[in-house]
Amino acid sequence: MSFNYDKSRENRLGFPEIIYGKAKTADELLDILSFFENQNKNALITKLQPEKYQILKTHFAGSFYDRRSGIFMLRPVKIHQSDYSVALISAGTSDMHVVNEAYYTLAFLNLQAEKITDVGVAGIHRLMDKIEYIKQFKILIVMAGFEGLLPSVVGGLLPQPVIAVPTSVGYGVAESGKTALNSMLASCANGITVTNIDNGYGAAIAAFRILNLLKK
Amino acid sequence: MSFNYDKSRENRLGFPEIIYGKAKTADELLDILSFFENQNKNALITKLQPEKYQILKTHFAGSFYDRRSGIFMLRPVKIHQSDYSVALISAGTSDMHVVNEAYYTLAFLNLQAEKITDVGVAGIHRLMDKIEYIKQFKILIVMAGFEGLLPSVVGGLLPQPVIAVPTSVGYGVAESGKTALNSMLASCANGITVTNIDNGYGAAIAAFRILNLLKK
Amino acid sequence: MSFNYDKSRENRLGFPEIIYGKAKTADELLDILSFFENQNKNALITKLQPEKYQILKTHFAGSFYDRRSGIFMLRPVKIHQSDYSVALISAGTSDMHVVNEAYYTLAFLNLQAEKITDVGVAGIHRLMDKIEYIKQFKILIVMAGFEGLLPSVVGGLLPQPVIAVPTSVGYGVAESGKTALNSMLASCANGITVTNIDNGYGAAIAAFRILNLLKK
Amino acid sequence: MSFNYDKSRENRLGFPEIIYGKAKTADELLDILSFFENQNKNALITKLQPEKYQILKTHFAGSFYDRRSGIFMLRPVKIHQSDYSVALISAGTSDMHVVNEAYYTLAFLNLQAEKITDVGVAGIHRLMDKIEYIKQFKILIVMAGFEGLLPSVVGGLLPQPVIAVPTSVGYGVAESGKTALNSMLASCANGITVTNIDNGYGAAIAAFRILNLLKK
Amino acid sequence: MSFNYDKSRENRLGFPEIIYGKAKTADELLDILSFFENQNKNALITKLQPEKYQILKTHFAGSFYDRRSGIFMLRPVKIHQSDYSVALISAGTSDMHVVNEAYYTLAFLNLQAEKITDVGVAGIHRLMDKIEYIKQFKILIVMAGFEGLLPSVVGGLLPQPVIAVPTSVGYGVAESGKTALNSMLASCANGITVTNIDNGYGAAIAAFRILNLLKK
Amino acid sequence: MSFNYDKSRENRLGFPEIIYGKAKTADELLDILSFFENQNKNALITKLQPEKYQILKTHFAGSFYDRRSGIFMLRPVKIHQSDYSVALISAGTSDMHVVNEAYYTLAFLNLQAEKITDVGVAGIHRLMDKIEYIKQFKILIVMAGFEGLLPSVVGGLLPQPVIAVPTSVGYGVAESGKTALNSMLASCANGITVTNIDNGYGAAIAAFRILNLLKK
Amino acid sequence: MSFNYDKSRENRLGFPEIIYGKAKTADELLDILSFFENQNKNALITKLQPEKYQILKTHFAGSFYDRRSGIFMLRPVKIHQSDYSVALISAGTSDMHVVNEAYYTLAFLNLQAEKITDVGVAGIHRLMDKIEYIKQFKILIVMAGFEGLLPSVVGGLLPQPVIAVPTSVGYGVAESGKTALNSMLASCANGITVTNIDNGYGAAIAAFRILNLLKK
Amino acid sequence: MSFNYDKSRENRLGFPEIIYGKAKTADELLDILSFFENQNKNALITKLQPEKYQILKTHFAGSFYDRRSGIFMLRPVKIHQSDYSVALISAGTSDMHVVNEAYYTLAFLNLQAEKITDVGVAGIHRLMDKIEYIKQFKILIVMAGFEGLLPSVVGGLLPQPVIAVPTSVGYGVAESGKTALNSMLASCANGITVTNIDNGYGAAIAAFRILNLLKK
Repeated sequence: MSFNYDKSRENRLGFPEIIYGKAKTADELLDILSFFENQNKNALITKLQPEKYQILKTHFAGSFYDRRSGIFMLRPVKIHQSDYSVALISAGTSDMHVVNEAYYTLAFLNLQAEKITDVGVAGIHRLMDKIEYIKQFKILIVMAGFEGLLPSVVGGLLPQPVIAVPTSVGYGVAESGKTALNSMLASCANGITVTNIDNGYGAAIAAFRILNLLKK
Repeated sequence: MSFNYDKSRENRLGFPEIIYGKAKTADELLDILSFFENQNKNALITKLQPEKYQILKTHFAGSFYDRRSGIFMLRPVKIHQSDYSVALISAGTSDMHVVNEAYYTLAFLNLQAEKITDVGVAGIHRLMDKIEYIKQFKILIVMAGFEGLLPSVVGGLLPQPVIAVPTSVGYGVAESGKTALNSMLASCANGITVTNIDNGYGAAIAAFRILNLLKK
Repeated sequence: MSFNYDKSRENRLGFPEIIYGKAKTADELLDILSFFENQNKNALITKLQPEKYQILKTHFAGSFYDRRSGIFMLRPVKIHQSDYSVALISAGTSDMHVVNEAYYTLAFLNLQAEKITDVGVAGIHRLMDKIEYIKQFKILIVMAGFEGLLPSVVGGLLPQPVIAVPTSVGYGVAESGKTALNSMLASCANGITVTNIDNGYGAAIAAFRILNLLKK
Repeated sequence: MSFNYDKSRENRLGFPEIIYGKAKTADELLDILSFFENQNKNALITKLQPEKYQILKTHFAGSFYDRRSGIFMLRPVKIHQSDYSVALISAGTSDMHVVNEAYYTLAFLNLQAEKITDVGVAGIHRLMDKIEYIKQFKILIVMAGFEGLLPSVVGGLLPQPVIAVPTSVGYGVAESGKTALNSMLASCANGITVTNIDNGYGAAIAAFRILNLLKK
Repeated sequence: MSFNYDKSRENRLGFPEIIYGKAKTADELLDILSFFENQNKNALITKLQPEKYQILKTHFAGSFYDRRSGIFMLRPVKIHQSDYSVALISAGTSDMHVVNEAYYTLAFLNLQAEKITDVGVAGIHRLMDKIEYIKQFKILIVMAGFEGLLPSVVGGLLPQPVIAVPTSVGYGVAESGKTALNSMLASCANGITVTNIDNGYGAAIAAFRILNLLKK
Repeated sequence: MSFNYDKSRENRLGFPEIIYGKAKTADELLDILSFFENQNKNALITKLQPEKYQILKTHFAGSFYDRRSGIFMLRPVKIHQSDYSVALISAGTSDMHVVNEAYYTLAFLNLQAEKITDVGVAGIHRLMDKIEYIKQFKILIVMAGFEGLLPSVVGGLLPQPVIAVPTSVGYGVAESGKTALNSMLASCANGITVTNIDNGYGAAIAAFRILNLLKK
Repeated sequence: MSFNYDKSRENRLGFPEIIYGKAKTADELLDILSFFENQNKNALITKLQPEKYQILKTHFAGSFYDRRSGIFMLRPVKIHQSDYSVALISAGTSDMHVVNEAYYTLAFLNLQAEKITDVGVAGIHRLMDKIEYIKQFKILIVMAGFEGLLPSVVGGLLPQPVIAVPTSVGYGVAESGKTALNSMLASCANGITVTNIDNGYGAAIAAFRILNLLKK
Repeated sequence: MSFNYDKSRENRLGFPEIIYGKAKTADELLDILSFFENQNKNALITKLQPEKYQILKTHFAGSFYDRRSGIFMLRPVKIHQSDYSVALISAGTSDMHVVNEAYYTLAFLNLQAEKITDVGVAGIHRLMDKIEYIKQFKILIVMAGFEGLLPSVVGGLLPQPVIAVPTSVGYGVAESGKTALNSMLASCANGITVTNIDNGYGAAIAAFRILNLLKK
């Protein structure tokens, strides 16, 4: 079966077709990657399992893989220096799989993001101490699991666009990330908007859509 | 059908049997109240609908009713002066039905509570300004609807027992109070404990159980 | 009980404290509005029921009320002319209560929005015919009930920020708006972000946060 | 325990009893297959796990197994040439396990289907380009995971019977396939009908029921 | 706001745009109906509440309304005689609101259906007695509330296409129709397909799509 | 920690304390079994995983284990001959884990049950053919997964007590057994009663309670 | 539409067809009752709303109606004296609508039940005081709302068949009766069986099925 | 990435920052533990998986790990003798993972708890026999899985603060612990408060907050 690439997407939206890795076989992914390789294009796969990466890397030697997030790129990651465009804010290292997914998706789109990952609300002064620093960023992507309240607090303190990303971190009623998701949605009185659970990739694209407005 | 009063409850637990009003008919409630009247005892009914109060008040002239919470008492409310035992903390007037339910239940148990109802997290400095004042109370009952994050913030800042009460205030994913409930449960890392949605009465009894420890 | 206004919110976020009307009594709202009146400020109430408006309007003669959305303003609405900043896109008149909530919230913030309410996906050519027109807007707020797929199609065709607002329109599995909500969240691969069900107000504030970036 | 075959089903419905493999042990399946073998009949097992196939194949040498879908047949697959009866439409290779289940079930019933698996709605022109080709098919079986909107778009553009099959592909709110299912059900205004999640087999039988009408 | 009619839908799909009445105001509906009236076309509104019909009928004198289903037609209903095309099968009169919605939608499309509404499975012989009669119909639309098992039994006995419509009839776990819906979906092993809860309209359109195949 | 055996349960209820195996460690189970061994009593463990049985069997040589259901007994199973007391009715071999759990629990209580496991409703004549035979049993325990309709049909045809046991067999909306459970509950109009999902053990005890009435 | 009475049900099951009143119109019910009247038979309608009873009683003068449960009978209720067959056990008057539904259904079947409605578990000694009395009954039907634990306690203390009926009494997480239902199902380790929420009628029929065994 | 320790938490709340182990990698945990080691402080990790403990123990030789609960401490456990402060009450050994989590968290906070783990409600006399003993404790933490009724019974008999902890022990409707959770919340009429599912740690902190009141 040949891959029917959405050739016009880059023109329409400014970013190319990206591949969801979790539900495709290694063979199907090899097929798709060969297409990109032949077109001499970079490619991004999200949520790729380690065992499939073991197969892919034998075919694509210079490829990049981040085990924490499952991000795969056909070409080595290059971080382009940029100032204060996107902050990736989370409470601690438990949400790192989503932070990294957003970070490397932005890198794929030639955008640099800053990780601020130690401002959990349980000790709110740590966030307060960094407010002036965070004010410099244009867009705030805020990740949280459990009860997911970090985006609400950030959105109440700062005027920028806030993209909230619930994570599946937690147990009991928090287990699947639904509690963090609903908590973020129910708090939208402040103009926070929300993505699917663990969708760091989607948050990165949403930031890209906003930053595009600033170029014009 | 005669009412089989749990005579030993007051001895066992320190508080008498209390009547859930919502699912009983006016006739059934009249029966029960007559029993208390005959015993020369005060009685507390929770979640009583206004149309049933219209019937009850014609039989029990000195009775008390708070329409916002649906609390009914056989005898007039008397607030006994007490210092800094229980604070009832909420974001604003939307949760007043639950604040009042706790307030009057505590009054029924001869305890005075203080209402602090303007410290919503969207403007967190309002809470910060009152921290020293709130530190004086022994127990903090914190109500919140929507995403329910006020108890989490309070619990991160203050060392007292925090009893979190989710309210059914909100719309969309918050409509039934489930989001506030789950958010409070998922945040229990700080040792917050939680009651049923809109259960101001239960929070008051829980506070009573704790305050009893201090008497001994 | 006096109203503890969040005085610094306008400085922090660029927009004042806004009042959720649904769960407050008319008396509580009168109290709050008097505060704003005394400060000589306009005020916005969301999701106000008609029966409470009947009481409010006797006190505040020049006030504005939109019955379809429940939006109330202390002062008459004035629409400031602006070009192509925000498009409010929906499939038809069933979602008008949310379209209007966003429209009047933007008006309160001195922003003009354009309503495009006849581009349902069941006849997708109607959307296709307007693509060039829609391309001129900076931000697209897309409302949909039932299966909620309009934001996904819009997001696949156009590069702007897309704020998706699920509505509670529908029956059966769609009844509460949860299906539209989940459908929009699950489609976030395109960088769409989502608000709570029926939260036209939140979408308007999110647009305001983005448009603020363009001023600088 | 002997197998009590539903002997009259083929007469009643036109297709024989089919075996659900997932919850039976290998021993139970061997028993059942021996019955079919002795009757000199072909047999179809759905959702058979690979480790059980390893056991079955040692007993039934000429049998067929498709690992992607878990379809097993006692006899080798033969695809009978047929024109434009059933199209199996999906967005990409992620849903291939369901596409294949429908494909091989139809083959078992002596029907040929065409796989059209690269028309995802994120790039809607790819679907538009194939509309004339798809018009030739009598029945459209449309698979989709995530938000499941492909059947809605197909049903809005084309007049044939549309059988929508939600798949369990996705993560977060899409994880179990419930969002795709509800999205397809909520869109039934267009006369789309829906099967259980991942039920490619059921969609094939539904197509068979319709095609039978055309024979008469 | 003017109504943007989907003019090509009748050409594309064979049936015109149909109006969902439940979430539109009477004024919005009057606007839409005037458009149809001016085009000299009949129009169908589904799920119209009685209080809105009171307003519509003063403007459109010859219009038709069925209170049980909420079906409204601009012109009087005419039932065209046709033989044995569609049977509407239900257990009893409790599901009549859905039976009627399908019946009048088919009438709007110039198709006659037969109502068979007394074959509940609790007395299965009543269904058995009518099997030969039901065999004559081309398509079986089967409605059921509560546990929703009628379509499963019909589908196990008869070879025609079976369109299952769950209804919201029942209480407790059946209250919203979700149990009937899931029961029908989980039974799809027999090639039954399912519509949204109470969606008699959608089932009628699905039947129309199938019957169209027979014309060619 | 020593095991605090409920010594009076056998006197109170007629059956001894039974051990839930799934959530206990092998060490905890060894402790408990030693207690029974020392008391010279037989013991029943339910839902015991195979890997824990591997440990237990090295300590209790004559013990019995059924891998399909996870039933463990300290002493070898002995089936006492009894006539037509309990029928265990299911559609096929997929539900065998629950059939066996009920079967061996009854054996532990010195009751013999008959397995009738090939009367699926998809071919309803197979059930009809056995009606006279089934009439002889005093109690009918009916297992079903997927849409769970077998108990409803049995209950409509036969007058005995019907204990319905939903099983976790199925996929998609049926996956966890919730659909079968709700379907059985919603059908209780016929006086069917229901147990937890996969609870063959509970159904056996319920039958035991009924059969006890007949002894007196 | 004429009513197709299930004539053989009384022979098959021992009780006649019973009518679910909630979802039928008054006209439909009048039709059905006329049929029974003409056959000179009594009839039972469950869950009949008061406003429909107002219409029915003008046609059937000697009929019986219990407003608390919505039970309607064509003929006056007669309670046949019987000894200790069925106890209806509940915590208090809040569940009276379900107690009465069971009571009058049993009366319709010529069985007398005893109401024991003041043994709530919050004061467990009240239940303990009545244990000897309750031991005399053959079958225990136990109703409970909120957390639904009364059946579990009764089932742990007494050896009879226990039919647990969850009620929709409660608020917050208990609102719909789902918590009581799940609590009763999860407790089935003791051989308790469960009916749908508020299904006093079904519990009565289940008791009837068991008592029939004792006649033989 | 360096660890940003919440230095003031111990001053604010009386207990230090505690580490959630489940969602962090071994490398991330090693980083955090090194920080504590360098500060010469003890540290507590909750819900640590055994495979990660295998790595940690090679770096921190004197550390403590309880496999049943996943509790890890940097320094060996020391149980400080204390009288009757906290009782940990559960029905049996199935809930031991939560009992131990509370036990070792209290030990970390220099509090001794008593485990009372054999008082299941199915044999309620075992609880009754220990009532006088349990009366001596200041705080009762009560764990339960399945239907979760033990806290309700304890709360009805005893006057102390009751902290209810639902556990994920059970199957079918009880599987995830949601049924026990809702059962405990719905029972809060007695002033019981509740934590997240399996949150023995949170219950211990809540007890610590209460016991702090007694010191002053």
